[in-house]
Amino acid sequence: MNTVRMDNLSWVDYERRVQSGAVVFLPIGATEQHGPHLPLGTDALLASAISEDVARAIDGVVAPALAYGYKSQPKCGGGQHFCGTTSVDGATLIAMVRDAVREFHRHGVKRLVLVIGHYENQWFVTEGIDLALRDIGPDADLQVMRLEHWEFVRSRTLDRIFPDGFPGIALEHAAVIETSMMLHYHPHLVALDQIPDHGPAQFPVYDIYPTRTEWVPDSGVLSSARGSNADKGQWLVEDVIGGIVQAVRFEFGLES
Amino acid sequence: MNTVRMDNLSWVDYERRVQSGAVVFLPIGATEQHGPHLPLGTDALLASAISEDVARAIDGVVAPALAYGYKSQPKCGGGQHFCGTTSVDGATLIAMVRDAVREFHRHGVKRLVLVIGHYENQWFVTEGIDLALRDIGPDADLQVMRLEHWEFVRSRTLDRIFPDGFPGIALEHAAVIETSMMLHYHPHLVALDQIPDHGPAQFPVYDIYPTRTEWVPDSGVLSSARGSNADKGQWLVEDVIGGIVQAVRFEFGLES
Amino acid sequence: MNTVRMDNLSWVDYERRVQSGAVVFLPIGATEQHGPHLPLGTDALLASAISEDVARAIDGVVAPALAYGYKSQPKCGGGQHFCGTTSVDGATLIAMVRDAVREFHRHGVKRLVLVIGHYENQWFVTEGIDLALRDIGPDADLQVMRLEHWEFVRSRTLDRIFPDGFPGIALEHAAVIETSMMLHYHPHLVALDQIPDHGPAQFPVYDIYPTRTEWVPDSGVLSSARGSNADKGQWLVEDVIGGIVQAVRFEFGLES
Amino acid sequence: MNTVRMDNLSWVDYERRVQSGAVVFLPIGATEQHGPHLPLGTDALLASAISEDVARAIDGVVAPALAYGYKSQPKCGGGQHFCGTTSVDGATLIAMVRDAVREFHRHGVKRLVLVIGHYENQWFVTEGIDLALRDIGPDADLQVMRLEHWEFVRSRTLDRIFPDGFPGIALEHAAVIETSMMLHYHPHLVALDQIPDHGPAQFPVYDIYPTRTEWVPDSGVLSSARGSNADKGQWLVEDVIGGIVQAVRFEFGLES
Amino acid sequence: MNTVRMDNLSWVDYERRVQSGAVVFLPIGATEQHGPHLPLGTDALLASAISEDVARAIDGVVAPALAYGYKSQPKCGGGQHFCGTTSVDGATLIAMVRDAVREFHRHGVKRLVLVIGHYENQWFVTEGIDLALRDIGPDADLQVMRLEHWEFVRSRTLDRIFPDGFPGIALEHAAVIETSMMLHYHPHLVALDQIPDHGPAQFPVYDIYPTRTEWVPDSGVLSSARGSNADKGQWLVEDVIGGIVQAVRFEFGLES
Amino acid sequence: MNTVRMDNLSWVDYERRVQSGAVVFLPIGATEQHGPHLPLGTDALLASAISEDVARAIDGVVAPALAYGYKSQPKCGGGQHFCGTTSVDGATLIAMVRDAVREFHRHGVKRLVLVIGHYENQWFVTEGIDLALRDIGPDADLQVMRLEHWEFVRSRTLDRIFPDGFPGIALEHAAVIETSMMLHYHPHLVALDQIPDHGPAQFPVYDIYPTRTEWVPDSGVLSSARGSNADKGQWLVEDVIGGIVQAVRFEFGLES
Repeated sequence: MNTVRMDNLSWVDYERRVQSGAVVFLPIGATEQHGPHLPLGTDALLASAISEDVARAIDGVVAPALAYGYKSQPKCGGGQHFCGTTSVDGATLIAMVRDAVREFHRHGVKRLVLVIGHYENQWFVTEGIDLALRDIGPDADLQVMRLEHWEFVRSRTLDRIFPDGFPGIALEHAAVIETSMMLHYHPHLVALDQIPDHGPAQFPVYDIYPTRTEWVPDSGVLSSARGSNADKGQWLVEDVIGGIVQAVRFEFGLES
Repeated sequence: MNTVRMDNLSWVDYERRVQSGAVVFLPIGATEQHGPHLPLGTDALLASAISEDVARAIDGVVAPALAYGYKSQPKCGGGQHFCGTTSVDGATLIAMVRDAVREFHRHGVKRLVLVIGHYENQWFVTEGIDLALRDIGPDADLQVMRLEHWEFVRSRTLDRIFPDGFPGIALEHAAVIETSMMLHYHPHLVALDQIPDHGPAQFPVYDIYPTRTEWVPDSGVLSSARGSNADKGQWLVEDVIGGIVQAVRFEFGLES
Repeated sequence: MNTVRMDNLSWVDYERRVQSGAVVFLPIGATEQHGPHLPLGTDALLASAISEDVARAIDGVVAPALAYGYKSQPKCGGGQHFCGTTSVDGATLIAMVRDAVREFHRHGVKRLVLVIGHYENQWFVTEGIDLALRDIGPDADLQVMRLEHWEFVRSRTLDRIFPDGFPGIALEHAAVIETSMMLHYHPHLVALDQIPDHGPAQFPVYDIYPTRTEWVPDSGVLSSARGSNADKGQWLVEDVIGGIVQAVRFEFGLES
Repeated sequence: MNTVRMDNLSWVDYERRVQSGAVVFLPIGATEQHGPHLPLGTDALLASAISEDVARAIDGVVAPALAYGYKSQPKCGGGQHFCGTTSVDGATLIAMVRDAVREFHRHGVKRLVLVIGHYENQWFVTEGIDLALRDIGPDADLQVMRLEHWEFVRSRTLDRIFPDGFPGIALEHAAVIETSMMLHYHPHLVALDQIPDHGPAQFPVYDIYPTRTEWVPDSGVLSSARGSNADKGQWLVEDVIGGIVQAVRFEFGLES
Repeated sequence: MNTVRMDNLSWVDYERRVQSGAVVFLPIGATEQHGPHLPLGTDALLASAISEDVARAIDGVVAPALAYGYKSQPKCGGGQHFCGTTSVDGATLIAMVRDAVREFHRHGVKRLVLVIGHYENQWFVTEGIDLALRDIGPDADLQVMRLEHWEFVRSRTLDRIFPDGFPGIALEHAAVIETSMMLHYHPHLVALDQIPDHGPAQFPVYDIYPTRTEWVPDSGVLSSARGSNADKGQWLVEDVIGGIVQAVRFEFGLES
Repeated sequence: MNTVRMDNLSWVDYERRVQSGAVVFLPIGATEQHGPHLPLGTDALLASAISEDVARAIDGVVAPALAYGYKSQPKCGGGQHFCGTTSVDGATLIAMVRDAVREFHRHGVKRLVLVIGHYENQWFVTEGIDLALRDIGPDADLQVMRLEHWEFVRSRTLDRIFPDGFPGIALEHAAVIETSMMLHYHPHLVALDQIPDHGPAQFPVYDIYPTRTEWVPDSGVLSSARGSNADKGQWLVEDVIGGIVQAVRFEFGLES
């Protein structure tokens, strides 16, 4: 039994945790192609694993992940033309987040953290939070933190992992960061021998619709995952866990 | 690695499976109180476990579960006043299902099974399927089966488990059926010593809103789970798995 | 002039009734095939007639029926492939109910009864009530009862009408119960000579979409209406009227 | 049995009528205050009665009326502050019409007439038609006529009824036209002795929200109904029935 | 710098104006064909120019116009089959107005005027205001005036401009009133030599969908603009500006 | 008369341009605080001015700007707590874009460019395009480019303008880039003496809701606009215009 997972707790235990002030985490992932070497669930798996590590450190609770995210874009996720990428409309994701935030507020949760594991989700999650807070009204005693976990990776860690220069988070889809973190958390789900060997994708500064699928490598990988390993995964995860723990403690006034 | 779980597969492997005609299963659960002895995730956990067992038998693929369901009703789930029950509006569930069905169709899936693990979901899932099929248009080569897993339990199994008479599926919330199935699949998540000891709830044939919470036992259990055990769980699961496998093979013309 | 029908009252008379505490009834029917012997309006006609009988007994008011219901399902209404069945999307029915409940609350109605005459409506009506109550806010002095009228038929009446065993409410579409009740209320709308003569429909425990129309008898009747008569209609109606009157008086604290 | 009313027909009879090319009429009314002398259902009652008269003349079918209309405005219906006025949001009326038009098209109806009996409905009905036709697609063999019945009253009839000058259709709420038509169709629902005796309401050319309720007579009548009688009702109805019959025959190419 | 235009003010200056009680004007136009002699932006250009003239007189502020309006109808705007007419769904216009009104309320605006320049917008704007006021709640200190500018033209001015009789506002699309007002405000945008020379359009009292495009002159002009000139424009504008100024001062209790 | 502005063209002229293959530009701005020195309309003004310059170069047409954008966020626009910032819900912006794209397609436009001038708009515009293309269907001969104009500023220009290092586009709200571009296009709308003198805002990598308004400078300026001038504005605009012209020509196969 995983005592930080809400879906493993009885409502009686959950209520006790909430009443004692536990921070609740909601991982928001995607079901999206991540190249031939990473599984479709990578974004939800990482957001959940990170949420659980953080929750363990501060006695929090992790709600079931939203496993379907906003539509994959060519420049950050490869695009919607890949088989297996299973996405929802913006309105659907907004509604999911809005309903969830409203429910956690009803439970008595005072401090909620939405942990995004899929770049395309950010703005629809933001709107969902905003609409939930509008529903709840101005006097709600609820604070919501929204974060994208990779933002907590420190620049010196990036320098260490990318001695030749960081290609930028935009191209880090199914690349060294995600692959290394998966090697840390779920090594049996990584097929190292399937990592494709091609240079990074090149995109213009604009987008065109319908998607110019020829801009995207056939593999779905936007820059090479070569050189990924579990050690790098651990460095990354340590930054992320440490950073989130610190942020949550600081912003929500928790004792460390 | 769980080779029937879509979130464990790479898109390349998933595409191969879909192109070879794999049936895809989408479990649709809830995050809902299930008494002091079962976890909040019971409905999604059971729908997922059953989907995986069925998928293993017919080489299918199980998509990530929808972990949040329609609002809990007093008579079948205890109601929305329980802490921990985390539900979505009808429109949200409709949208989730609509988007998902549309996406599986885009992948080339021809045979899709929606496995409902939460009674309250049924009609909103039905509407989501209907709207997706309207979006896709009349000539789509897609068939969708929608089922509630407990409907596959045979009457003779019910007679065996309830020698004094089956109280009816309506009251089987967090009771013998669900508890036994959880003891079969996730025994470490069941707190047998927390099973409350009270008689079944009594409900009139109508409903009243706002919810008359006094109609519902404080425990959230609608009829006693006493007498649950893993053996009964296995009998139940065998009926359900066997029944679904047979239904899918028959309706979708699969060889057995 | 029918003094229980809201559409026959002036606003001045209606206001007087509401201010004196009258219970308001909203019948929610459908326009749906009911075999060759019953009219398309059966569900709204019965829900309205029953509402009026109940209202007469307790000095209530009956609002105009919602005449279009949620999409007909094969197992309980024959399905959407029949000509004449005229249904609305789930969201439309939810919105209709939500708006109506909100308006009755604005009028000062404190006790509202939604009388469902079409099985498929139940969950969307429930959602409409829930959303209206959310709109109105937690301190509203409004109670809403939702009921399906056939649930008030007593088991001994079923035994009397079905001496060979009740086939179950699910198959009672355009069958003995509805036909007998129509013979009681609207005999001129029943074409007894058109009752089809075939055995009950057989359905599996799951559903498939697009609808397997071959599962449904061509007549649209799910089990035979043979043996229907006005006497049985009266027995049924007496149960239903009596049951609803009692429920409303009890729950809403009316003097009898 | 009223053989032009769809809700009185079996699906088999309705199908036969549709297949032989029957025009279908959908009355769209309101539940709205009409002064102390007319019932709340006036708009739906008149739209239905007129539809039935027209249908009788051309062998058409009349679907169940939409009994709830768009929000009453001070200048044409008195406004939403009256008890009894029971209105829906614009989106709800749009959805109702959209769904209905789509369903009639599915039935095979080729010529549909939406008969509006409530001024405020017009634009939302128009949008509902437009969205339904978008749903159906450009090649649908469906024509939809939308009309407000009072527009068919001839100017010479107005001159005859209002020898001192017609105050304008805007103020004809619960006034001579509606009262006379109700005296023609439903005399037992008119309380002639309750007709208020005050001059016409005066409105500026703009509107203010929240509604300036002091602009509207307390009675809800916008100009006096004095002088209403069944003869005038008959003159009006003859114009309207005759005009609609002619319009339908001409536009839809029916033989007269 | 145009000191009545909100988009030309800094937020600091705007806040100062709002805090001192400035009335805010929101012009709501369209992008719609106006014949070969007037530009597509006519409705928004006129609503904006009029709003600015009024605002100058009473120290008000004019927000950026909504430049896209509800779908053009044959009888008042020619219809949606013209190239260049660029319209939004009813729900979109409702949402735009709802959001805008809610935002002005948040700013502290107490008196807001929605200046409609496109006939088809009226009901959707009305609904947007209603929903915003519902959102804001009953105690908001906000009054909203909604007006169509042409309603302020005095009958004696119409007599002066149309000595042979006013054809009615319905046919005044791209005709003498709009053309003359454009000649007053934006003479360089009027191509007098392109005014078509044909009689007024003739419409029945009903509408048919899909649009009978043959009812509408190919030019898109519903009655002739011949005889338009800047003097007439000035007379019209003087009526409109004067009337709105007076209405705003009177209703909102401003000193003149 | 500005011959690239759609709202200045008659429908006849617009149709001619569209039929000859003109690219249509839709500027999408905001009404948002831009510090005490820039006007609330900055984002729409810049997006429109840039669109017009580009359109002039390639004989395109510029549609009326969407003047209201998605809700301002603290880190890129200061946040919604500023007076004057007037924003729409995500669903509203999605709908506006969806409707507009669908309409341009109806006109026969084959190449459409959405020019975003407000950072927060990007994802909702993307969703609006996606939904419009879904509505239109897979065989539409329409290509849509979506761009944020500042992305076309070359790094060497940034080096020239920010010799001490570019603070990043995130903080460039009401700062040197926007102020300089406004000095180029609309110098009379810039109050240079009102530029606040404070260091750049510091934000954590996460967000918190309700907004921590103390994170945002009271002025609304996120990094100093000191040093802005029209020359820098010209350098920036030259990059942007040049870049967009080149992109449009290249992607849409126009001759240069």
